[in-house]
Formats: sequence, structure tokens, C-alpha cells
Amino acid sequence: MSSIKDVAKMAGVSVATVSRVLNDKGYVGRDTREKVEKAISELNYKPNEVARSLFKKQSSTIGLIVPDIMNPFFTELARAVEDTASNLGYNVILCNSDGNSKKEQGYLDVLQQNYVNGIIISSNTLTAEQVKAMNMPVVSIDREISRGLPTIVVENKNGAVAATQFLKKKGCKRIAHIRGTHGVVNAEERFEGYKEVVAAEEWYSDSYIVDGDYDMQTSVEATLDLLKRHPEVDGIFAANDIMAIGAIKVAHQLGIKIPEQLSIVGFDGIALTNVLTPELTTIAQPIYELGETAMNMLVGLMGQQPVHETYYKLEVTLIEKNST
Amino acid sequence: MSSIKDVAKMAGVSVATVSRVLNDKGYVGRDTREKVEKAISELNYKPNEVARSLFKKQSSTIGLIVPDIMNPFFTELARAVEDTASNLGYNVILCNSDGNSKKEQGYLDVLQQNYVNGIIISSNTLTAEQVKAMNMPVVSIDREISRGLPTIVVENKNGAVAATQFLKKKGCKRIAHIRGTHGVVNAEERFEGYKEVVAAEEWYSDSYIVDGDYDMQTSVEATLDLLKRHPEVDGIFAANDIMAIGAIKVAHQLGIKIPEQLSIVGFDGIALTNVLTPELTTIAQPIYELGETAMNMLVGLMGQQPVHETYYKLEVTLIEKNST
Repeated sequence: MSSIKDVAKMAGVSVATVSRVLNDKGYVGRDTREKVEKAISELNYKPNEVARSLFKKQSSTIGLIVPDIMNPFFTELARAVEDTASNLGYNVILCNSDGNSKKEQGYLDVLQQNYVNGIIISSNTLTAEQVKAMNMPVVSIDREISRGLPTIVVENKNGAVAATQFLKKKGCKRIAHIRGTHGVVNAEERFEGYKEVVAAEEWYSDSYIVDGDYDMQTSVEATLDLLKRHPEVDGIFAANDIMAIGAIKVAHQLGIKIPEQLSIVGFDGIALTNVLTPELTTIAQPIYELGETAMNMLVGLMGQQPVHETYYKLEVTLIEKNST
Repeated sequence: MSSIKDVAKMAGVSVATVSRVLNDKGYVGRDTREKVEKAISELNYKPNEVARSLFKKQSSTIGLIVPDIMNPFFTELARAVEDTASNLGYNVILCNSDGNSKKEQGYLDVLQQNYVNGIIISSNTLTAEQVKAMNMPVVSIDREISRGLPTIVVENKNGAVAATQFLKKKGCKRIAHIRGTHGVVNAEERFEGYKEVVAAEEWYSDSYIVDGDYDMQTSVEATLDLLKRHPEVDGIFAANDIMAIGAIKVAHQLGIKIPEQLSIVGFDGIALTNVLTPELTTIAQPIYELGETAMNMLVGLMGQQPVHETYYKLEVTLIEKNST
């Protein structure tokens, strides 16, 4: 492989001159530039991006950190970010934090130190101070870090209220909740929405709430436990779709008919909900729009263009299918 | 933020000495080392990984390039690579090539130029020459690039033979095939396996083979077309699970009973097959083992340790569920 020295030698100029041509900085005479470009072409020289980024402090890559790559919500989000990035000429490198703060910090260090231009992150462990200390544009998505930072989230509480009210309207008398991970903002908001609708009911108690940790297998276990303790449950609002899918699986195992004996509503609106039997009623997030808006906002921030809006709370929509 | 110069100044040594301490190279006296370490600690100095990698040409990050992050097969594979990497102290950055050679080359450039230590890739566009020119350890997974290169794949043809024979054994008289992407090695091998079992049948013709492009939606359209032209089809072997899920969806739409009127077998063994109704009979790959073996092999190659085995063709297993 040719080095910058080889180029300099062939062009009969100094390495510094080649560097000026490569980085389009400082004065270089036309003849000299042509000689350097000819040498670069003949030697098929590819400038080392790492060395270059030391000068330019930018590449055309952004980082996307998600807490769970196995959850289709995040792969659909990644797809949207990547489509938008690709149209704008950016690469996306994807990191899976497992919602683990140590792993998350490890990836933030890798991304930062390798000079990505910006980061989109769904985090429930980062603080506003940590984000500011990173000294590069960061957009938080799906999970709000702090009100002052660029953020794109959805109407979690309203969506949860709609889901629970819908179950009531369908005639459910005992509505349980499979909640998302403790401490994650959107899980708390969805839980609040559920509680707002049912807390005043005479039957209501904490024992109708189980922890699904935003995970399908955890939800399977939690639902088994719930239906053992409360066989009278006839409605479940799960805080995301994959937990709702886990609950449907349990109902099948136990011979409980959906929706005749048990109605289930999820949250997210992942594509998978359409291939299940029964198809899942869910509070659909505009997943693609979330990813697209985040990427567009990040590009604005990276280009130091004026970004008028740095906080979006997108609407969600109840999609009725045959699980209710 | 502190720089290496600040550290040198506080420790009363040269920048070169600090660099030697940081990179653990060359002689540094014990007292000097202690002074430098104290200054690093007091200034909370974080060495710039990019600058360091110029000397060391390594970080502790590997790249994983997959063709379709929306296919759970690849997210499960990524999960396995990441678990293994994490145990060994490596970060994994994930890139989605869409099976597009230009995008793939873009990500390879990014990964290479930012000094990842090695790459695991599932590619159907790379050539052996391109891999060799990359001058770093590369392990190909799921899709073989060239026989001489480190590779981990599965018994695709045998699996397809087993799937098709199983449908015959179940009494299917007209067995169709939803094939994977043209030109992708494993799609061709699975197609060959199917053909080997049915090519001699009197009913057999090319019109029983439709293109699903390893994509759920494409499979939905292809299956609709297939069953319109050949309503007599009573068995389908789909070359991956998400295409089989697409076919099940079509059967539901058309009111065709599974398995009474139509049996369906997939390939991959993704976790999703267990939450469907009916659960999907499939040729299961040892997905976790694939990812784990690839990562372990890559670590061996990166450490320039002797790697005894650089070609694995793992067994697949027929898992019978109620779609057949």
C-alpha cells in the first residue's frame, strides 16, 4: 500500500504539501496540485482517515446506540436512521448497550475517540452532564435524558391512557399491566397512564402490575405468574409489543381464548404485530418518523445550522386488530 | 480537557516519555512512570484513542457487517458475537450493508480506517482478493466468500434436503420452494437441496419455485402468486424463517388451513418461530454457536495465535412444530 511519503516523492513535493492538497487547506499552486493529484491517482493512494481526522476532526459517520438490538422496535428505528443517513451521505455504526451503563460508556468512548460527527442514543443511564461533557451533537431518542437536550420521544402517557381506556370500553373488568424496565422514563410514563385510568376502581391493587422488563421471555414468566394469581384478569396492557407477544404465547399455552376471554394491547407498532395470530392491537409509534427526525436534527446540529426545534413529542395511534 | 502536553508539563517530562508510558513501549524509569501516572490521574487525562491507534494500530473494537439487520437471524447472530466479544474485552460495532456492495465497501473503509482489529462479515459481494487487500483478520460467517478464507457456515444443502424429504414424508404431493436471494451462496445451496429431492418427480417444473429474496414482504407477494398459479401446492419449503412467516400469513389470508391443507418448513430457527401460531417447523441453525465460533476464531487470528481450524461447516437440525 502506498503512503503519503510515496506520493510526495513521486510528485517531487513535501509531505506537508500533499497534506494540504488532501485536506484542501492552505495555498497550493495549480501545477503542484496537479502533480500531487496525478501521483495520488497513479499510486492508488488512499489517505488514512484516522490521520486525516486528526486534522479535520470529522468523518462522515454517526453513531447510534440502542439498548436492545433484539427488540424489533430498535431495528426498525435503526433502519429509519440508516435510510435517512444514507440519503444524506452518512454511515451509521450501531452499538448495543444492553441498557448497561458500563457498556454504554464504553461505546460512547469508542465513538467519541474515533471521531464520529454525532450520536443518536436511547439511554436511561446517561445524565445531562455526561452528554454535555461529550462536546459533540447528541440527540436522544425514545428515552428523554434531560429537557434541555435535543430529544425525540412520543406521547407515552397519553398512549397508555388510550390503551387502558380502550380495554375498559371493550368491557374488560380486571385490567392488568405488564410494565417496562424500572427507571426507564417511557416505562414509567406508560405505567402512569395505565394507573390514571384504573387506580380509582374498587378492584385495583398493585398485584395487577407485573414486571416484564421490556423483554419477551421475562414477560412470559410474569404473565404466567399474573394469571395464576389473578385468573379473573380479562384485559392486559403491555408496555411494549414484544411483551404483549409473550403474553399471547402464555394465553395459548393455558388455553385462554383471545379476545373472547382475554384482550391484549401492546405499545410500539412493530411490523411483527401484523404477522401474529391474532394480530395485535397496539399503540403505534411513528417509528420511521422518529428515526428520520432524529437523523435530520443531528445533521442540522453537526452542520451548526440553526435548528429551530430541538424537542419533539410525537403522537401515537391506537391500531385495533383482533387481540381485543 | 487535558492534553498529553499538560500531563508532560505536570510530570516534568517530555511528551515522548508520556507516550511511552501510555503505550507501554520502550524504557521508562520507575520514578518517572509514577510521576506520569500521577499526573494522568490528577488531570483525569484520557488519551486520544485515535492518536494512540496511529502508534499501536489497534483498539479493542471489532466490526460486524450483516446484510439485513431487520432479519432476526442476524440480530441473534449479533447478540452471540457481542456476548462473546464482551467476555473477551472487545466492543462490537455493527454495520448494515443491505447486501449492497457499495454500502458494504463504505463500511469496510470506515472500519478499516478507524483501526478495528478485525471484522466478521456476512457478504455475497466481496471477493477473496478484496478481503486479502484489507490486510487484517476477516472471518466470513453465514455466507462463504472463498474456500481459503476463515469461514463459518452451516450444512445448507443437507438441511434443505432434510426439509424437503420431511414434507414428502408428511404426505405432501406438490412441494414448492420460496428461494432466497439469487447469487447468495446459501440461497443457491438450499435451492439445490430442494431440487435434488423433487427434480425427478413427474409434476416438477420451475414454476413451483418463487423468489422471496430472503424478505418477508417479498415472500408474501411471491406466495400469493404461487398459490394462485398452483392451488394444488400442499407443501412449501422456504429458504429462511421470515419468508416462511410471510407464507403462513398468506395462508391465513386465503383461509388455507395449516397443516391440514398446507405444510410449511422454514430455515434458520430464529426465536420468533416459537411465538407464532402455528409454531414453525424449521431447519434450525446453531445461531449462537455460529456467532461465538466466529468471534473466538477472529480473536485467535487477531492475536496471531495459531488457529488450527479456520473452516467450520456446522450441522443443522430439523425441529418439528405444528406447521407441518
